[in-house]
Amino acid sequence: MKTSEDATDLAARFQAVRRQTETLCGPLSAEDCVAQSMPDASPAKWHLAHTSWFFETFVLASPGYEPFDAAYVHLFNSYYEALGSRHPRSARGLLVRPTLAQVNAYRNHVSERVLALLDRRPHEVVTTIELGLHHEQQHQELILTDIKHLFGTHPLLPPYQLRSSADPTRATLPLGWEPFDAGLHTIGHRGTGFAFDNEGPAHRVFLEPFALATRLVTNGEYLAFVRDDGYQRPELWLSDGFRTRMERGWVAPLYWREEENGFHHYTLGGSRPIDAEAPVCHVSFYEAEAFARWAGARLPTEFEWEVVAADAPISGNFSEDGALEPLPAVTGHERPAQVFGDTWEWTSSAYAGYPGYYPPAGAIGEYNGKFMCNQMVLRGGSCATPRSHIRATYRNFFPPDARWQFSGIRLARSAS
Amino acid sequence: MKTSEDATDLAARFQAVRRQTETLCGPLSAEDCVAQSMPDASPAKWHLAHTSWFFETFVLASPGYEPFDAAYVHLFNSYYEALGSRHPRSARGLLVRPTLAQVNAYRNHVSERVLALLDRRPHEVVTTIELGLHHEQQHQELILTDIKHLFGTHPLLPPYQLRSSADPTRATLPLGWEPFDAGLHTIGHRGTGFAFDNEGPAHRVFLEPFALATRLVTNGEYLAFVRDDGYQRPELWLSDGFRTRMERGWVAPLYWREEENGFHHYTLGGSRPIDAEAPVCHVSFYEAEAFARWAGARLPTEFEWEVVAADAPISGNFSEDGALEPLPAVTGHERPAQVFGDTWEWTSSAYAGYPGYYPPAGAIGEYNGKFMCNQMVLRGGSCATPRSHIRATYRNFFPPDARWQFSGIRLARSAS
Amino acid sequence: MKTSEDATDLAARFQAVRRQTETLCGPLSAEDCVAQSMPDASPAKWHLAHTSWFFETFVLASPGYEPFDAAYVHLFNSYYEALGSRHPRSARGLLVRPTLAQVNAYRNHVSERVLALLDRRPHEVVTTIELGLHHEQQHQELILTDIKHLFGTHPLLPPYQLRSSADPTRATLPLGWEPFDAGLHTIGHRGTGFAFDNEGPAHRVFLEPFALATRLVTNGEYLAFVRDDGYQRPELWLSDGFRTRMERGWVAPLYWREEENGFHHYTLGGSRPIDAEAPVCHVSFYEAEAFARWAGARLPTEFEWEVVAADAPISGNFSEDGALEPLPAVTGHERPAQVFGDTWEWTSSAYAGYPGYYPPAGAIGEYNGKFMCNQMVLRGGSCATPRSHIRATYRNFFPPDARWQFSGIRLARSAS
Amino acid sequence: MKTSEDATDLAARFQAVRRQTETLCGPLSAEDCVAQSMPDASPAKWHLAHTSWFFETFVLASPGYEPFDAAYVHLFNSYYEALGSRHPRSARGLLVRPTLAQVNAYRNHVSERVLALLDRRPHEVVTTIELGLHHEQQHQELILTDIKHLFGTHPLLPPYQLRSSADPTRATLPLGWEPFDAGLHTIGHRGTGFAFDNEGPAHRVFLEPFALATRLVTNGEYLAFVRDDGYQRPELWLSDGFRTRMERGWVAPLYWREEENGFHHYTLGGSRPIDAEAPVCHVSFYEAEAFARWAGARLPTEFEWEVVAADAPISGNFSEDGALEPLPAVTGHERPAQVFGDTWEWTSSAYAGYPGYYPPAGAIGEYNGKFMCNQMVLRGGSCATPRSHIRATYRNFFPPDARWQFSGIRLARSAS
Repeated sequence: MKTSEDATDLAARFQAVRRQTETLCGPLSAEDCVAQSMPDASPAKWHLAHTSWFFETFVLASPGYEPFDAAYVHLFNSYYEALGSRHPRSARGLLVRPTLAQVNAYRNHVSERVLALLDRRPHEVVTTIELGLHHEQQHQELILTDIKHLFGTHPLLPPYQLRSSADPTRATLPLGWEPFDAGLHTIGHRGTGFAFDNEGPAHRVFLEPFALATRLVTNGEYLAFVRDDGYQRPELWLSDGFRTRMERGWVAPLYWREEENGFHHYTLGGSRPIDAEAPVCHVSFYEAEAFARWAGARLPTEFEWEVVAADAPISGNFSEDGALEPLPAVTGHERPAQVFGDTWEWTSSAYAGYPGYYPPAGAIGEYNGKFMCNQMVLRGGSCATPRSHIRATYRNFFPPDARWQFSGIRLARSAS
Repeated sequence: MKTSEDATDLAARFQAVRRQTETLCGPLSAEDCVAQSMPDASPAKWHLAHTSWFFETFVLASPGYEPFDAAYVHLFNSYYEALGSRHPRSARGLLVRPTLAQVNAYRNHVSERVLALLDRRPHEVVTTIELGLHHEQQHQELILTDIKHLFGTHPLLPPYQLRSSADPTRATLPLGWEPFDAGLHTIGHRGTGFAFDNEGPAHRVFLEPFALATRLVTNGEYLAFVRDDGYQRPELWLSDGFRTRMERGWVAPLYWREEENGFHHYTLGGSRPIDAEAPVCHVSFYEAEAFARWAGARLPTEFEWEVVAADAPISGNFSEDGALEPLPAVTGHERPAQVFGDTWEWTSSAYAGYPGYYPPAGAIGEYNGKFMCNQMVLRGGSCATPRSHIRATYRNFFPPDARWQFSGIRLARSAS
Repeated sequence: MKTSEDATDLAARFQAVRRQTETLCGPLSAEDCVAQSMPDASPAKWHLAHTSWFFETFVLASPGYEPFDAAYVHLFNSYYEALGSRHPRSARGLLVRPTLAQVNAYRNHVSERVLALLDRRPHEVVTTIELGLHHEQQHQELILTDIKHLFGTHPLLPPYQLRSSADPTRATLPLGWEPFDAGLHTIGHRGTGFAFDNEGPAHRVFLEPFALATRLVTNGEYLAFVRDDGYQRPELWLSDGFRTRMERGWVAPLYWREEENGFHHYTLGGSRPIDAEAPVCHVSFYEAEAFARWAGARLPTEFEWEVVAADAPISGNFSEDGALEPLPAVTGHERPAQVFGDTWEWTSSAYAGYPGYYPPAGAIGEYNGKFMCNQMVLRGGSCATPRSHIRATYRNFFPPDARWQFSGIRLARSAS
Repeated sequence: MKTSEDATDLAARFQAVRRQTETLCGPLSAEDCVAQSMPDASPAKWHLAHTSWFFETFVLASPGYEPFDAAYVHLFNSYYEALGSRHPRSARGLLVRPTLAQVNAYRNHVSERVLALLDRRPHEVVTTIELGLHHEQQHQELILTDIKHLFGTHPLLPPYQLRSSADPTRATLPLGWEPFDAGLHTIGHRGTGFAFDNEGPAHRVFLEPFALATRLVTNGEYLAFVRDDGYQRPELWLSDGFRTRMERGWVAPLYWREEENGFHHYTLGGSRPIDAEAPVCHVSFYEAEAFARWAGARLPTEFEWEVVAADAPISGNFSEDGALEPLPAVTGHERPAQVFGDTWEWTSSAYAGYPGYYPPAGAIGEYNGKFMCNQMVLRGGSCATPRSHIRATYRNFFPPDARWQFSGIRLARSAS
């Protein structure tokens, strides 16, 4: 990890990020914050606690430090084997204790001590605090995806926020293809800003000529795939994908529900008819890949994507914009559009270390490296990602069957 | 079901039972009331709602009745197929909505209307209200067993109540054997008081001579079985029992935990050293049966038990006494002791209908009859059972691997 | 176990029973004898070996005895914990070695030595040899049921034997009801003939008045249940039964297959249209119990059955008759008909030890006693049972979901 | 697929390959050929039939063609969705019918007709016959790996062949590192010889500088990892890898078994002490990856491997050599050694289509393309691979937990 920021700015940013996490939980009752709707998702209370555990463990803990509560060391460790035993992931929804009030007290306690330490000994802690903030921003997105899963699979479909959805009549851009020549490119993070370890080392990649779709795939386009029996035709699917689709009975994206008057889907503002112009979301890699084959295209590699994104401004529909759902692409300067924000974009790249990558020593080395198998890379951030969290070299990763993230599709083609 | 009570008394009892359910939830936060620690257990909030659903469905519902909330008809149906679809049992812990406050409003709404109806048209509803009250008392016990499971498997082992445990130095009665001659007996409920359908028809059963232990098996006696490698010797166990014990890694009763200074167990008052003089509790039928074989004895049949209990006073350690754990048998008039209260007693009888038993028509017929397979009968009530709920003909039933009920052991022997 | 036979007769019977086992395997190739179609079933080769293992272990083994092959002690032990480790039951189909030829050599080796021992020291071994012969007859029936499962679930449905089926036009007896008064009866084996330990001790049972159907339920009657949506109506089923039926997709008895012109079923003579007049077979306890409820009746208890059977001749359609499928009841002297043979009859009695029953000491005590839980008693033998194996006190037992045995239905009613 | 061979040569090769498959089954009895030891493995009889099915389906089938047996179309289809239903993979061990003799008749029937067609209309069929031969060679290796699994997990550990193992005293080469500069390379098949579709299109890949180990990792080196608690240290493993290792209880490679005098392993010649100088084999990708981390190295990418292999002669220890186990590397001209033969080499590359890859249309498109997810690429062939089957561009692929293939480890390093 690299950082370049002075301590005062960092303190302000620390306070802003911590506050934002709590703001996201504002619409939730204590009851809402307890439940875990599936092993992949975590209760909001657990996210609140774990992001504090991270600062306590990696910033505060040192010889002589007395933890806020010795039990929390075990309860709120996510997956760090080097830090000892952990409460089982799938049982996080049973943590009725500590109460939400106790977890909030824990948050305050940790925040105060981190700020005091940053004030006293900034050189020792800025790097880890910076990492902790990016870590907390990741969990801000997870709070939204996990609450969406809890509410979106609840029989009552309760809304998380009441603000009205985007203007449903707005048309999206027509689909175009942006061509790129063959060439040698440098991939991965360079320079002095923050980046996760998995974004480096920078290295050279040769790309054969390709073209990239100028916007994300829409609900309307995806619906055509559904109506064309896309979910019933094994020849469109990877073998593992079709087996998964059969086992789980998938016939449409997660949160889609067919009613008499067409498909509706759960959004964080409640259940609504799908907007044909907005990007499709909550599809697995398997579905994205099958759709691409049906469309006579393919998914981009993460390298193709990064080469394009390196020249794009980091603008788009992010969590700060408050829509919390992907929106139609509007005419603008960017080309391609929607490179950042709206939905994460599945790539055809399996998640792996870059040439020369070795995880850092110690527990922090478990942050990214040990997951480099059986996952696919997603790029670009989503409507639930904080804008300040994303960049062109950012690598997100999920297993190919994951659907509860804000994951969508951008098509690519190999040049003929 | 039979009933004999006038409406005024019933109204008072209705209010008392409903209030008692809420009193039992008094020590619980809204968060505590959401979680479900295993599919067999239900959240306290669900118990609060389901017991109201029962009255709404079987007492209030009639042509023209508008349900409090149409969704609750589905959400809080436990297992009545005749009443349509149900929220899946194993997903009760995801019901963050309705909130606890909404469920309490539901309770009040239903209670008011039941009382009004009882006032207006008592003849139509007394039987079903009576049934509903006994149903609610069953759920009172389940609230305690299910919270005990939630807290007793939580890493922090939070206490449910703070009152101190019983005097740990009190000695129990010595173990004796009460002999009974062979003879023909009438088994099952007769007379006019309330009884569940599964307690009848009364019928004749011939018993060969037997002897019954004069008190329950103690923790100390059970510990001797543990120390004698009782859990490692397959010849002591039923085949299904030993396989279950292996698969689940059982080495002692549920809630027992070996520490340096001996076994401790979780009680509703928190974790404590086991009291060698108190009855062993939270054992499965498999463990009870293996213990009996090790002890050179066997479990009683439910008929043997009932013949003895028919002459015993309904006194003992019940939920009203507030201990909420089994206590040592003290010298008294009863012989055998602890027939009622302290722990449910596993019998060797598989749960089946009595000769001539047919379930009532309609949804209410699903109350008991459809469970008459793969379960064993338990008798006598426990420290978590309301005293007014139990009687000599009462048949409780659970699968042979269930351990989270307050289930213990009384030995029997066939006369030689 | 009790026995009364002199050694010469026993030697002849030993040879006949051993030969009969091999005769049953006559139509099978070495390949047929290897496969295991489900964990509950065993390969024919395994049955051939295990029945020899039984004699080697319980008759031949003594200090100084050299086993035929030390590995077989482990490979062909079925479930005797006291005799050490066992090859896993579900992996019996992987025993490509020893070959069928080696197993046959093992059989001959054991048979010769048993006969020699019987000649030299008859008093020491007659009891155990007698037990071993009854054990081997049980496995003769299992060879047929297990091959039927292997072939009946094979896509090619190969026949086991080529002989033509029974005359399909023969009509069955009309269904009648035989009434029985209330009274005290002695149940269980008495006298000097052979019986398994679970048939005793003889003891008294009081029966309320009941009536028993005069013949087994037919395919035609069962088909009416199927056509009346019997498998779609949960109110007809036990809760565990309906869940099982849903999970496994049962819509008819095992081996039934709907074709354009009606139901066909696999028989050991190949696939055939079902004969409406023949007894229904290959139903689970759950289906038997649901059918009985639909028919306004119930299953008999094992005691009711035994009281009736005690007066019936042991005649009927047994394995020696070679039909190997149940046949319509014909007019005859017996009343009720089909008490013995045709199909095992599910009773409503859970399998349990009789009053005063304790398993014998040592490994042989595992024969029956440890299975006395989660199983239901069946009575009367089937078309795959050797005639000399059955008697009125004989108790067979299987879990309530088992369908691959020749299990059928006889109805009973409580007198009103 | 590309081919360049005249029909006469092809006919001779066809006969040789077909005969070789049967020769490999020579040591097996009919019983041996039935069983399936796990869902990933298939019975030898199934391999014999499926390789004939492949020719019948893709070469012989045309309008008017009458299949040898209509049922075989279903029974011996492996995974081609476009060709209709299939017998379930995990139930291949239940195919006692057709018999081995019938399958051999099927083989002869198909072989004769293929040869006749090749004689009559060579231009129409050479391409598909060529593919069928390479397909059959893949199944020749699978026959060996699957029989090894069946015998190597059988309690008797029967040998497949009796020939003595290689000289156990032979020392292997010392481990060295061969450096390679950064540069742009063309990867994938070019030219006119046969290659599978997944070996193309040829395309450019830029490689950063790296070094490759000069031979495979030995049993002795792997044993040091085992002795250094390699299986107990999560920090050495991928997260999925360590979870897999825990769930399955892995403590050494498949077929290793610790005895008093050290580790033994099952080989196709029977059980033997491991040879410290021979290459380690039967490790999963997870183990290979953990070993590499422990050794301070990493696995090569498939591109690094191919660049090196492109200059290496196709020589080594192949199935034709008859050892059927990996052997120590001896001094020779090749550098690095053991690039081909001995063991498949796990690479760090997830299996994916090359840029511009699209599967062929129709059923044959399912051969490779639909498996391009959740698998890792292996390169170089093994001691069970036919020499004529392998080449530098050949891509094998298995899930990261697979261990029953002859899979081993070659280390690589990024240049510093």
